[in-house]
Amino acid sequence: MSEILQQDISFGTILKRVRELCPLIHNITNYVTVNDCANILLACGGSPIMADDIAEAEEITSICGGLNINIGTLNYNTVKSMKAAGKRANALGHPVLLDPVGAGASELRTQTARELIDEIDFAVIRGNVSEIKTLALGKGSTKGVDADIADKVTEETLDSAVSFAKRFAEETGAVIAVTGAIDIVADKDRAFCIRNGHPMMSSITGTGCQLSAMTAAFITAAPHHMLEAAAAATIAMGLCGEKAFERLSALDGNASYRNYIIDAVYRLTPEDLERGANYEMR
Amino acid sequence: MSEILQQDISFGTILKRVRELCPLIHNITNYVTVNDCANILLACGGSPIMADDIAEAEEITSICGGLNINIGTLNYNTVKSMKAAGKRANALGHPVLLDPVGAGASELRTQTARELIDEIDFAVIRGNVSEIKTLALGKGSTKGVDADIADKVTEETLDSAVSFAKRFAEETGAVIAVTGAIDIVADKDRAFCIRNGHPMMSSITGTGCQLSAMTAAFITAAPHHMLEAAAAATIAMGLCGEKAFERLSALDGNASYRNYIIDAVYRLTPEDLERGANYEMR
Amino acid sequence: MSEILQQDISFGTILKRVRELCPLIHNITNYVTVNDCANILLACGGSPIMADDIAEAEEITSICGGLNINIGTLNYNTVKSMKAAGKRANALGHPVLLDPVGAGASELRTQTARELIDEIDFAVIRGNVSEIKTLALGKGSTKGVDADIADKVTEETLDSAVSFAKRFAEETGAVIAVTGAIDIVADKDRAFCIRNGHPMMSSITGTGCQLSAMTAAFITAAPHHMLEAAAAATIAMGLCGEKAFERLSALDGNASYRNYIIDAVYRLTPEDLERGANYEMR
Repeated sequence: MSEILQQDISFGTILKRVRELCPLIHNITNYVTVNDCANILLACGGSPIMADDIAEAEEITSICGGLNINIGTLNYNTVKSMKAAGKRANALGHPVLLDPVGAGASELRTQTARELIDEIDFAVIRGNVSEIKTLALGKGSTKGVDADIADKVTEETLDSAVSFAKRFAEETGAVIAVTGAIDIVADKDRAFCIRNGHPMMSSITGTGCQLSAMTAAFITAAPHHMLEAAAAATIAMGLCGEKAFERLSALDGNASYRNYIIDAVYRLTPEDLERGANYEMR
Repeated sequence: MSEILQQDISFGTILKRVRELCPLIHNITNYVTVNDCANILLACGGSPIMADDIAEAEEITSICGGLNINIGTLNYNTVKSMKAAGKRANALGHPVLLDPVGAGASELRTQTARELIDEIDFAVIRGNVSEIKTLALGKGSTKGVDADIADKVTEETLDSAVSFAKRFAEETGAVIAVTGAIDIVADKDRAFCIRNGHPMMSSITGTGCQLSAMTAAFITAAPHHMLEAAAAATIAMGLCGEKAFERLSALDGNASYRNYIIDAVYRLTPEDLERGANYEMR
Repeated sequence: MSEILQQDISFGTILKRVRELCPLIHNITNYVTVNDCANILLACGGSPIMADDIAEAEEITSICGGLNINIGTLNYNTVKSMKAAGKRANALGHPVLLDPVGAGASELRTQTARELIDEIDFAVIRGNVSEIKTLALGKGSTKGVDADIADKVTEETLDSAVSFAKRFAEETGAVIAVTGAIDIVADKDRAFCIRNGHPMMSSITGTGCQLSAMTAAFITAAPHHMLEAAAAATIAMGLCGEKAFERLSALDGNASYRNYIIDAVYRLTPEDLERGANYEMR
């Protein structure tokens, strides 16, 4: 509680704003998890629009409040749209989020993510530790879209991971969200170390993509509190992962768990969010 | 009941025909809600096939009974396929439905929807009031893919909306389905004003897309009763939204609600449909 | 049980290996059922990555253990990626699976499937009887993506279907999995005739695609037992269809059934799989 009082804005207030403002979020995202991204945006109080053709990318971004760029299943055409939409969103002052899905897994993804960071000012960059390391260090050990064991953020490696995230935040000017067993959401000065969530979340495809979409809504609704908004979304996702896990029956598996997490976001109240937040500042 | 008796064909009979004939529907549709469209087609008794490459669009349409064109996440290539498939379906006498997702939100969508209407004879055009107004009036106020508040069909604006729908039906030769809090399904002479449904349906992505897919199956199974078939599908969707809402537990949110609606379509009987229909003719 | 003892490896052991090795599977697949394919891969213990752009197809396949090629919603660009990834996987000795969705429904699909078989060595080819017949006989009667009634494998036609599958296995060098009411999984010498499953599985879009994805994980985890691994995956899918059906309430339909099947795969134990397997060798 004392942490919350030290902030300019509470997590609950941020969630309330999302629900009141219903930010329209333009998503250029992969076709694997796009439906879940749309439904979690609706669940948290936002409104989704998906559009990836170059002929409409800038125009769609213009009518939205924020932009979520996710490079999973990228291709030649959609990369052009990501860049055009990102630049337009920058020009309009809309917050832009990057989810560098699979950076490090292929040269195309690594290179695309780097070009995007060079050409666009991101408000938030959210990925697993392997993806973020790939972007920051110019090399990486991404194996598919999940972080390597060796790259896990644990209690032992937390301090160094926090320093790393702050440095990359300073370098990019973006809030850096490194999600995993412990989530780090950092700007150059402050880091939220978040212990919400459940290991079973990694058995669902796209919890990361969903968090990115939701984060885009939160930062769009609270643009003057990017760090707190990104942390609030990350805590909300983790907390809903916990709530959904409690709800599982002996027959439920990852498919029902997916639904229950989105359900929990739909039912999440500002009070739930503040009460359930489990984090420290470093 | 008296309304039903005045019709040539009952809603229950139309649903029975869908289940008996199992119409194969070619869908050129967006990648956001495509899985739900396929599952709701199966739930109602139809059979889905998705194909959007120009090299097969006409051939796939030829082996189907009806065609569902949905312009969400359209791109340069799929628009070509929409046109080719639509013309082929017209030549074969297959009913074609247009869902102008996001018409008004970008010039590409508005222009594409208009070109499709110019080049193809649609049996049904289904959208929210903002999308339909954009097409009919040559301007619009679409904000994303949901209808503007200002454009809502309410009891106060119902009569003018009905007149508008009938005029646009006359102009296009298509049955016009304007869906929202009150749904209007109209040809040039008659309009079903439907009060089935639940507000929570708007918290799920793609209930409109799903309704379009299902409508394509209904009109394909009852091609001599386009108006009644489109109304039957609209009523079925709304009724299933009501049934699914009743089923929600305190923990369920929009993800479970999505599943429950499709489940309810799967379980819907002709008797349910007739008993639950809540509409008037204007 | 005696059947199991005659094998070199039990189905339970194969499932255990999938869970231990967590094979990373590259999927070039359709956008209709891709999310379900990812989630069932995670449910069975594998790990999915989806990538279809030619600029990364070979590189992504290189970091994976196996490749799943599914031609539903194919297009000009993705076919190039299928071929490039398939050849690379062959060069690396990774098992490759082909799901010829809709072969016979369009010339593009039939031709593409044939070219893929010509250019790539498949470990497994899995489809319904109509699709497989199209590939084997050079003609077919595919109506959409489901097998024709006339082409159903029944007790009466089982022997001839088994002979056919064995011949096509010999011709292609692949394990042939023909799935339907009775599933046949055959190499040139032996055929598993599998009676697991439930008719309601055909009311869900993509149970075939999901089985193909899961089969890719099983054969990647047990590359020296392709036939047994493909049979184990087919039995697992059918068994989970049975378990999920038992779980259905009076209100549940095909949407919940879809989730319950994936849930059942998540909960499936090696013991369940061995106990529930219902098959004979022919």
